[in-house]
Amino acid sequence: MIDQVIAHIESQYASYLKRLNAFLQIPCISTDPKARPAMHDAAHWVLRLFHDCGIEADIYETGGHPAIIADTGPGDDGKPTILIYGHYDVQPTGDLALWDSGPFEPEVRDGRLYARGSADDKGQVLTHLLAAEAWKKVAGKLPVRVKFLIEGEEEIGSPHLGALIEKEKSRLACDYVCLSDTAKFSEDTPAITYGTKGLVYKEITYTAQRNDLHSGTFGGTFPNPGNALVKLIAAMKDADNCVTIPGFYDDVLVSTDQELAALDALPFDEQAYRASVGAKALAGEKGYTTMQRRWLRPTLDVNGLLCGFTGEGAMTIIPAKAMAKVSMRLVPHQTPEKISAAFDKFVASHTPAGIDAQIKDFTTCAAYMCPLDNPGLQKAATAVEAGFGVKPAFIREGGSLPILPLFKQLLGAESIMMGFCLATCNAHGPNEFMVVDDFNKGIRTAAYLVDRMAG
Amino acid sequence: MIDQVIAHIESQYASYLKRLNAFLQIPCISTDPKARPAMHDAAHWVLRLFHDCGIEADIYETGGHPAIIADTGPGDDGKPTILIYGHYDVQPTGDLALWDSGPFEPEVRDGRLYARGSADDKGQVLTHLLAAEAWKKVAGKLPVRVKFLIEGEEEIGSPHLGALIEKEKSRLACDYVCLSDTAKFSEDTPAITYGTKGLVYKEITYTAQRNDLHSGTFGGTFPNPGNALVKLIAAMKDADNCVTIPGFYDDVLVSTDQELAALDALPFDEQAYRASVGAKALAGEKGYTTMQRRWLRPTLDVNGLLCGFTGEGAMTIIPAKAMAKVSMRLVPHQTPEKISAAFDKFVASHTPAGIDAQIKDFTTCAAYMCPLDNPGLQKAATAVEAGFGVKPAFIREGGSLPILPLFKQLLGAESIMMGFCLATCNAHGPNEFMVVDDFNKGIRTAAYLVDRMAG
Repeated sequence: MIDQVIAHIESQYASYLKRLNAFLQIPCISTDPKARPAMHDAAHWVLRLFHDCGIEADIYETGGHPAIIADTGPGDDGKPTILIYGHYDVQPTGDLALWDSGPFEPEVRDGRLYARGSADDKGQVLTHLLAAEAWKKVAGKLPVRVKFLIEGEEEIGSPHLGALIEKEKSRLACDYVCLSDTAKFSEDTPAITYGTKGLVYKEITYTAQRNDLHSGTFGGTFPNPGNALVKLIAAMKDADNCVTIPGFYDDVLVSTDQELAALDALPFDEQAYRASVGAKALAGEKGYTTMQRRWLRPTLDVNGLLCGFTGEGAMTIIPAKAMAKVSMRLVPHQTPEKISAAFDKFVASHTPAGIDAQIKDFTTCAAYMCPLDNPGLQKAATAVEAGFGVKPAFIREGGSLPILPLFKQLLGAESIMMGFCLATCNAHGPNEFMVVDDFNKGIRTAAYLVDRMAG
Repeated sequence: MIDQVIAHIESQYASYLKRLNAFLQIPCISTDPKARPAMHDAAHWVLRLFHDCGIEADIYETGGHPAIIADTGPGDDGKPTILIYGHYDVQPTGDLALWDSGPFEPEVRDGRLYARGSADDKGQVLTHLLAAEAWKKVAGKLPVRVKFLIEGEEEIGSPHLGALIEKEKSRLACDYVCLSDTAKFSEDTPAITYGTKGLVYKEITYTAQRNDLHSGTFGGTFPNPGNALVKLIAAMKDADNCVTIPGFYDDVLVSTDQELAALDALPFDEQAYRASVGAKALAGEKGYTTMQRRWLRPTLDVNGLLCGFTGEGAMTIIPAKAMAKVSMRLVPHQTPEKISAAFDKFVASHTPAGIDAQIKDFTTCAAYMCPLDNPGLQKAATAVEAGFGVKPAFIREGGSLPILPLFKQLLGAESIMMGFCLATCNAHGPNEFMVVDDFNKGIRTAAYLVDRMAG
């Protein structure tokens, strides 16, 4: 049956692209209060797609933007249930002058479809919807039960997703969560992403005096919060770029030899990677390769600094206060709570007399990792291989996806990430694109996924 | 004769205050291009004062705002010549809403005369002009030759003063420079300031990558210029708040036991000083008292920091660049050239691979100190004692006055600073004031100065 489904899909490429274009024309920017009608249109566009091919689906009001939950109904006996997660909302456009064509006027150039949301995530999530439609049309039913959870608030941090999943737990019950919201490993190589990093983000403000002071009149007699803050942040890492916060590495997962060997075997041109961002050198924690530091090791970075006089020229002050934003990317099995507490304790113990330290906490998120020997993960890999004609790379990701620990916690299911777009697709920047051929191969892969999960 | 001069002065207090008010009404803000007519008016107001009492005086065009040079003519045989330096230009007003009365509408409240320039420097410099006038009126001539150099560009860094002094060297030739542009030690105690600190001001920019990078995607693999910069600045001072730049303390003047004892004997309430700026603690170089750190020891301070994301909330980036403004206050006999070179060398040797360091140099100025046993300084002290009825404190100053090393270099003369205003007079802020009684005592002091210098 899979061969007929694939044959049908391949006959529909032109019409699929047209339909993606229609989806992309809806300017459903979830951060934009004026986009409420567009959010509604996009949610109903998705709903109609399901209904038109006879898949049961409903809109769920969340308190924010609505979500769609769909269900293809029972599969063959004893086969797993998969839940496809995706989102229909998109990022803001940013400066329109930087776009070569309108962000909501999709245009194909050199085999790439340019539009806001083409990769993140309309183009990628649509592959799964179109594959389910093809299965329905060709076979009348799907051999495994496929559920869909398509939300409209991913780009604003999914504030209502947890409550919705909790409420609709039984409707969403599944064996695996599958999503396509990550990237391929390279132009030639698709990827299965099996791990993401967690995040703890802090803002520290040091305050010493009521106002900025004249550095001549008062110099040498009062604490300078700028000097104190650089000392604090500097103390967080040693000369080997290791984080010095006590306990920071305690719970870091030690990679298996198998994982390290697989990582080492990935084709990776370090100098091309360096040159791609215009950097003069690579740097990081001593004793680890670039790829290990990127995916397997936790990091600590200054994200912002602000203190005193920052305009043109010279102003001779002892600043009253100084601010630093510092974030840590976590790996399994570090927990945000423990790292956050260790960080705060470090700040308290390193703050000198006369300085008042305030810490603000922002987004917190745990790392996620699907075991490499998870049967669903392995089946998904064979689907990607069939869809793209190339074995996927198994990769981890330095970014964070707060929904993954959420799925694990609330549904007890592991998540499998199949990336169809390029890492360089400008997901949140101007000229976002998806390679049309990758979109087509993504639909094939999504169809194979249904078949292989039944295998 | 001095007694008649003083008697005359004391009979004129009311008219002196009126004349100061007229001077203060001229809004001669040297930074303001629209204030050119006011600058002209103020210069001519000063010129007229000299001419009206028969003191030879001329306007000198400088390329910027004009200066006035005046000369009372030869004094008694063998008596020294003194050059009174001052400035007629004033600081901008800043936010008018913060002033309780108009900055150019002088108003006396509680014995204080509020107006921009009342202390810095119109009120202070006028004391010397009025004293010379009194001498002329009462005695017909002055026992010592008094020259005046009143410029209009002090608040913008005296850019044309060096060239003017160089050109008019013989006209300005003198044994001592006297100026009143500093403060009293306290409300009760006037001061002779005999030393100022020097200044070296740097801006360091660390650049790593072309653009800010996603801290997830690229974290752990590229240098973070924010982390590198805090490490650099932190390394400039040790745990004892000592500057670690090699050679920094090499040329620092070791104070005599006499100077240390005098400093120690000054009435100084450390806790009141601390509370006056709303600080929770005093801090500074280990092994020195607060007053020693304030006046006798060089300092290094962060004046500004800017890096990455500084807005509300969290943005997960590895910044492309990071900037720090760092200044050092120097003491005799540190030289700006040597300290500047040592600083640059320290930056170069502490900048890690992959980071491009740029250093911008701003204002540079040497420290200044008049030997405590200078005969002019001692005579000036007796004049202050006679004028105020209180022995003056001999103090140094943490701020910098670039004109002092200039006078020493170009005229070979030591500078004597007699401060008549309060340190809390809001010289560059809103509600600048001068205590009327201090203005009057300042005129007396200036008259005694002429007498004592002849003694």
